[in-house]
Amino acid sequence: MSKPVVRVGIIGAGNVGAALVELLNDPDRREALLDAATGPIELVGVAVRDAAKRRKGIPKQLLTTDVAGLVANDDLDILVELAGGIKPARVYIETALRHGVSVVTANKALMAECGTELAQLAHQNGADLFYEAAVGGGIPILRALRTSLAGERIDRVMGIVNGTTNFILSKMTSEGSDYAAALKEAQSLGYAEAEPSADVEGYDAAAKVQILSSLAFGTELVGDAIARQGIVGIRSVDIEFARRTGYVIKLLAVAERVGDLGISRRAHPALIPMEHPLASVHGAMNAVFVEGVRSGPLMWLGQGAGGEATATAVLGDLLDAARNRFSGRHDVPFSVDRTLHSVPAGELESVFYISIDVLDRPGVLAAVAGIFGDNGVSIQSMEQSGFGDEARLAFLTHMALTDRVTATVKDLAKHKSVDSIGACLRVIDGGRG
Amino acid sequence: MSKPVVRVGIIGAGNVGAALVELLNDPDRREALLDAATGPIELVGVAVRDAAKRRKGIPKQLLTTDVAGLVANDDLDILVELAGGIKPARVYIETALRHGVSVVTANKALMAECGTELAQLAHQNGADLFYEAAVGGGIPILRALRTSLAGERIDRVMGIVNGTTNFILSKMTSEGSDYAAALKEAQSLGYAEAEPSADVEGYDAAAKVQILSSLAFGTELVGDAIARQGIVGIRSVDIEFARRTGYVIKLLAVAERVGDLGISRRAHPALIPMEHPLASVHGAMNAVFVEGVRSGPLMWLGQGAGGEATATAVLGDLLDAARNRFSGRHDVPFSVDRTLHSVPAGELESVFYISIDVLDRPGVLAAVAGIFGDNGVSIQSMEQSGFGDEARLAFLTHMALTDRVTATVKDLAKHKSVDSIGACLRVIDGGRG
Repeated sequence: MSKPVVRVGIIGAGNVGAALVELLNDPDRREALLDAATGPIELVGVAVRDAAKRRKGIPKQLLTTDVAGLVANDDLDILVELAGGIKPARVYIETALRHGVSVVTANKALMAECGTELAQLAHQNGADLFYEAAVGGGIPILRALRTSLAGERIDRVMGIVNGTTNFILSKMTSEGSDYAAALKEAQSLGYAEAEPSADVEGYDAAAKVQILSSLAFGTELVGDAIARQGIVGIRSVDIEFARRTGYVIKLLAVAERVGDLGISRRAHPALIPMEHPLASVHGAMNAVFVEGVRSGPLMWLGQGAGGEATATAVLGDLLDAARNRFSGRHDVPFSVDRTLHSVPAGELESVFYISIDVLDRPGVLAAVAGIFGDNGVSIQSMEQSGFGDEARLAFLTHMALTDRVTATVKDLAKHKSVDSIGACLRVIDGGRG
Repeated sequence: MSKPVVRVGIIGAGNVGAALVELLNDPDRREALLDAATGPIELVGVAVRDAAKRRKGIPKQLLTTDVAGLVANDDLDILVELAGGIKPARVYIETALRHGVSVVTANKALMAECGTELAQLAHQNGADLFYEAAVGGGIPILRALRTSLAGERIDRVMGIVNGTTNFILSKMTSEGSDYAAALKEAQSLGYAEAEPSADVEGYDAAAKVQILSSLAFGTELVGDAIARQGIVGIRSVDIEFARRTGYVIKLLAVAERVGDLGISRRAHPALIPMEHPLASVHGAMNAVFVEGVRSGPLMWLGQGAGGEATATAVLGDLLDAARNRFSGRHDVPFSVDRTLHSVPAGELESVFYISIDVLDRPGVLAAVAGIFGDNGVSIQSMEQSGFGDEARLAFLTHMALTDRVTATVKDLAKHKSVDSIGACLRVIDGGRG
C-alpha cells in the first residue's frame, strides 16, 4: 500500500501550469514539498498543444502532445488538469478517475457543470477530486468548507469572486470613473478580456456560486436556477448615491438558506454597508464571506487570479492528493442533501435601490410614488438630483418581495414621465438601523 | 484497520466544552457529522471538577471527575483537552499520545510552550495533535497553514489575534475614548478580565506568535525571544495622530523572515495603513494576514473567542482526527527547519512613530532633533500640538534600526526639556509613498 513515489501528469502549460512546474522543481522547496507530501512526487509529463514551443522552466523531455497517452499511463497517480473548458477536459478527467487516478483541476466551468457527479465518480474509484483553484484563485476557501467547517451549519456564503468586475467597480468608486473608462483601463491592464461579457454579465460569478453552494450546503441543485445580473448598467451616479448613504457597490456571488429547506443562489451587484468586511475588498482582490450558525462570520481574502497565486492553490491540492496516495486513502466527498430546493429569486425579500431618469414636471413624484404603492412596495427614502430633462430620482425601498419590485420597475418604465430606468439593485443587510 | 466507531473523551465542560457536546449531540447535524467523520463518533466521557453541578445539554452519565481514568481508557481514540493551563493538561496530553490516542486541544499556552515537542510525540505514536482553536478562535487558519499552504514559502504572518486589545483600540479609535474608559467598557462587557495584563501587555498575542511562526516557517525556535510590547501606554493623541496621517493602531502578532535564515517574532502595537486589510478588523474580531511568495497576500477573518465559535474549530479538528482514525492514518507534522534563527528585535529596521511631551521653550525642537541626529535616526515628519507645559511633539522617522531608536528614546527621556515619552510605535509598511 505504501507507494515509493507519486507520479503526476499535467495537462496545460499556460501561466498556472508553468508556475506549478516551477514550484515542483524549485530546489529550495524540495525538502518542504517532500515533507508536505510525505513522500517524493515525480512529474512524468506535461501535455501541451505545441511541444516545439520553448517553455521556460519546463524540461523539454517532459513535454508531450499525446494527452490521451498521458491520461492512460498506467503508472499515473495524479492528473492535474489546467487546460480548461468543458470538452475534452471532462473526458480526460473521467478517464483518469475511472482508472483510480486522483484529479486536481482549476476548471471552474466544468466543476460548476458537473462537479458533484465527478466527485461521486472519484469516490467510487477510490480517487480524489480537488479543485481549490476553481474559486478565488489562491484563496484556500474550498478546503476550509470541506474540512474545518464540515461540522458547521452554514447560513450564507457571499463572495467577491470576480476580480475583473471588482477592479471596475473599485475604479468607479475611488476615482469616479464611468463604467466605460474603468472597463477600458481593466482591459489595458489585462484584468478584462477584449470580449468581457463572461465577467461583466456575471456568468463567471454564477459558476462560482454553483461550486460554493454545493460545498457549503451539500446540494446537487443544478446551475440554471442561479439568478444573474451584470454590472454593465451601473453608472457613476449609482456609485455616488451608495457612497453618500454609507454603502459600496460590489458584484456578489451569493448562496444562502431561505427557511429550512430552501437555498437561494444569485450573482448580482448589490449595495453593501461600508462597515461590512466585504466593503473593503478593493481592486482585483477576491474574498469569500461565510456565516455559520456557530462560527459566526468568517472571511477569506486573497488574490483571485494570477498564475503564481493560482498555482499555489493547485499545489495545495496536489500535496493533499499525494498524502492520501501515500497513505492509501482518499477523501470522501460531502454528503448530498436532496431535501434542499432552489428558491427562485423572485420570491426573496430584500431592500432595493432603484434609480430612474425622469422628466422634471409637476406631479411626477406623486405619479411615481403611486406606482410603488400600487405594487405593494413601500419606500424608505427618496432623493431627487438634477433638473428638467436631466432629473433623476433615487429610491431605497423597505423590505420588499423581488417579484413586486420587478413589477414596479416594469410599470415605471412604461410611465410617460419616466425617461429610463437607471438601476435596480439589492441592498445587502439593508434592514439595519 | 477500519474501526466501527471512534470514541472521544473530553476534559473540561466550560463554554467551549458544553458547546462542543451540544454540537456532537445535535440531531439535525447527526448525518452531516457522520458523513464528515466518515463514521460514527461516540462520546464516552466528559471530565469535570464537579460532577454534581448541572450542565445543560450534557447527559449526566457522561460526567466524571476521574480525568486520569478517562485518559487511560484503553478504548479511547481521541482526547479533547479543553481545561487549559500547563499542568496537569500537559501530563494528560502526553499520556494520551503515548497510548496512540489522538489529541485535539484549544490550549494556547501549552501549544506555545511545547507544541513542536508534542507534535513529534504524536507522530512517533501514530496519533494526531490538532489545535486549531488555540489561535483565532473559530478561524480555520492553522489547518490552512498545515495543508493548503504546505508547499508555499511564507514571508510574513501578521495577526490581530487578541480580541480584548482590538476591542479597546477600536473603541479608542471610533469613539475617542481614552484607554482607561475603553478598558473599563471591555471589562463590563466581559471582553477583558478584571486583571487584564495577559491581554493588554501582549502576553496572549506573543503566545500566538509562537504557534503561528512554528507552523508558517517550520521553526522550533523557543518563545522567549519574542519581543513584546503592550497597549497600556497608548493615548487618544496617538490614535488621533495615526488617523490624521492615514493609519490605525492595532496590536499585532508578527512573525516574518529577515534575510534567508532569520525569523523575527514580535507582539506589539503598530500603526498600519488605513487601506491595509487588517485596518478594517474592528471590535473583538480577529484576523490573520499571510504573505506568501507565490500566493501573495491572504487574510482570514472571524470571531477570535466565544464558546460556540471556538467549539466549531475544535469540531473541525475532531472530525479530521476521526477521519484519520477511520482510515488508519495520521497527519505528519510540519518539518522543522533548524537552519532558521531568531533575529533580535533591536536588529530590525522600521519606520517609527515617537511622541514626546515637552516643555514648550525656544530651542526645544533643535535640541530634540539633535538627539535623533546623534543616534543616526533620520526624521520623516514632525508636528507640534499644544503649548506651554502641554506641548507635544510627534515624529515619524525614516527607516531606522530599532536599537538606534531605543537609544534615541532613552536620550530623549533624559533631556531637561522633555517631560515624558508618550509612545514609540512601529509603523507597518511605513516605507510606502
